[in-house]
Amino acid sequence: MDTEARLKQSWDENAESWITSVRGGHIPSRQLGTDGAIVEIVRALSPRSVLDMGCGEGWLVRALAAQGIEGTGMDGSAALIEAARHENIGVFRHLSYEALVADPVQVGGPFDAIVCNFALLGEVLAPLLTALRVLTLPGGHLVVQTAHPLSGGDAAYAAGWREESFSAFGVAYPSPMPWFFRPFGNWVSLLTETGWTLTHAHEPLHPHTQRPLSLLLVARNPA
Amino acid sequence: MDTEARLKQSWDENAESWITSVRGGHIPSRQLGTDGAIVEIVRALSPRSVLDMGCGEGWLVRALAAQGIEGTGMDGSAALIEAARHENIGVFRHLSYEALVADPVQVGGPFDAIVCNFALLGEVLAPLLTALRVLTLPGGHLVVQTAHPLSGGDAAYAAGWREESFSAFGVAYPSPMPWFFRPFGNWVSLLTETGWTLTHAHEPLHPHTQRPLSLLLVARNPA
Repeated sequence: MDTEARLKQSWDENAESWITSVRGGHIPSRQLGTDGAIVEIVRALSPRSVLDMGCGEGWLVRALAAQGIEGTGMDGSAALIEAARHENIGVFRHLSYEALVADPVQVGGPFDAIVCNFALLGEVLAPLLTALRVLTLPGGHLVVQTAHPLSGGDAAYAAGWREESFSAFGVAYPSPMPWFFRPFGNWVSLLTETGWTLTHAHEPLHPHTQRPLSLLLVARNPA
Repeated sequence: MDTEARLKQSWDENAESWITSVRGGHIPSRQLGTDGAIVEIVRALSPRSVLDMGCGEGWLVRALAAQGIEGTGMDGSAALIEAARHENIGVFRHLSYEALVADPVQVGGPFDAIVCNFALLGEVLAPLLTALRVLTLPGGHLVVQTAHPLSGGDAAYAAGWREESFSAFGVAYPSPMPWFFRPFGNWVSLLTETGWTLTHAHEPLHPHTQRPLSLLLVARNPA
């Protein structure tokens, strides 16, 4: 199986563990700042409608709903979408990234903002980011939260596949998840090449170590 | 004396040592990749005319001239500009950043590209970056090479003053140089707020450690 397929399958296999981790508040970096950062940054853009691409079990759609923002969640995992729908807040679609690329408007829209919260994990992202631009009007926003380039450790500072074991998340996960590490410049080029204009980057810090917890990229659809 | 003034004075006091370091090839990171990277990135933009803002003793203007690119160098240090003119290649202006902000067009232009090669060292940069935009036409480029955010060591990952002792440069320097460290997000916001569109970021790597030697930002004047 190729690595992109293993990535997708890991979400099917880990769905139950993931729901436990997210709903139990067991992911330290999320509690320390990344959950709060994405909600605050989306809220500051004042969108009426948001697409949460790769929404998982749907916590962000619910958090945005609490701010009066209408959210649509989309995910490739049937188990995660089922869990999201069970909470009765927001609209959720079970759709793979490939299906979205093939026919973007089936997910609805146009949206004032699109959010990818730790959801751009594969190597080939240009078709998806191009499709997401179709789902916004000129002036619409894309907000991407991802692993910070400083968090790559002592490995070469170069784009490439890494593996997440979820060992810090408090419950057992059946499958390690492959994910594609990107240096800062890789993200900038990717946005430019898919027609987005990068306007801001936020780097929430760990309150004690003062090291970045994540990288949040805010881009605008220029036309 | 405030820190911005100490920064400016350090260049007057260190001019002779700096000329020795640059012309002797004594700055390891420059030999390992940052000199080559800035020349290559500017060359790839195919500019006819370039302003080298904070040109020092002028090596980059000479390197661009060797590629058929007409360069104007500008620096706030009289001693460095005198050394640059002595080589008889390129046009050099002795001008402080404050004077450039007050009356940008006195330096000439418009230029196809403006280069700031390790030359944006102070805390307050918005007036300067706004003035530089006046010196380009729509579609013109700004190329900034600066310290990579990963190079900040164990200090808090936050914008702030640091100090360069030049201890790795092979000759004695009379004055340590204060310089202002910026995380990625600080650079992105600064460009956006001064009307530039960030299109690419390059991160040349140390050939052995595979850690980034510098951050190179390429921005475009959108209008």
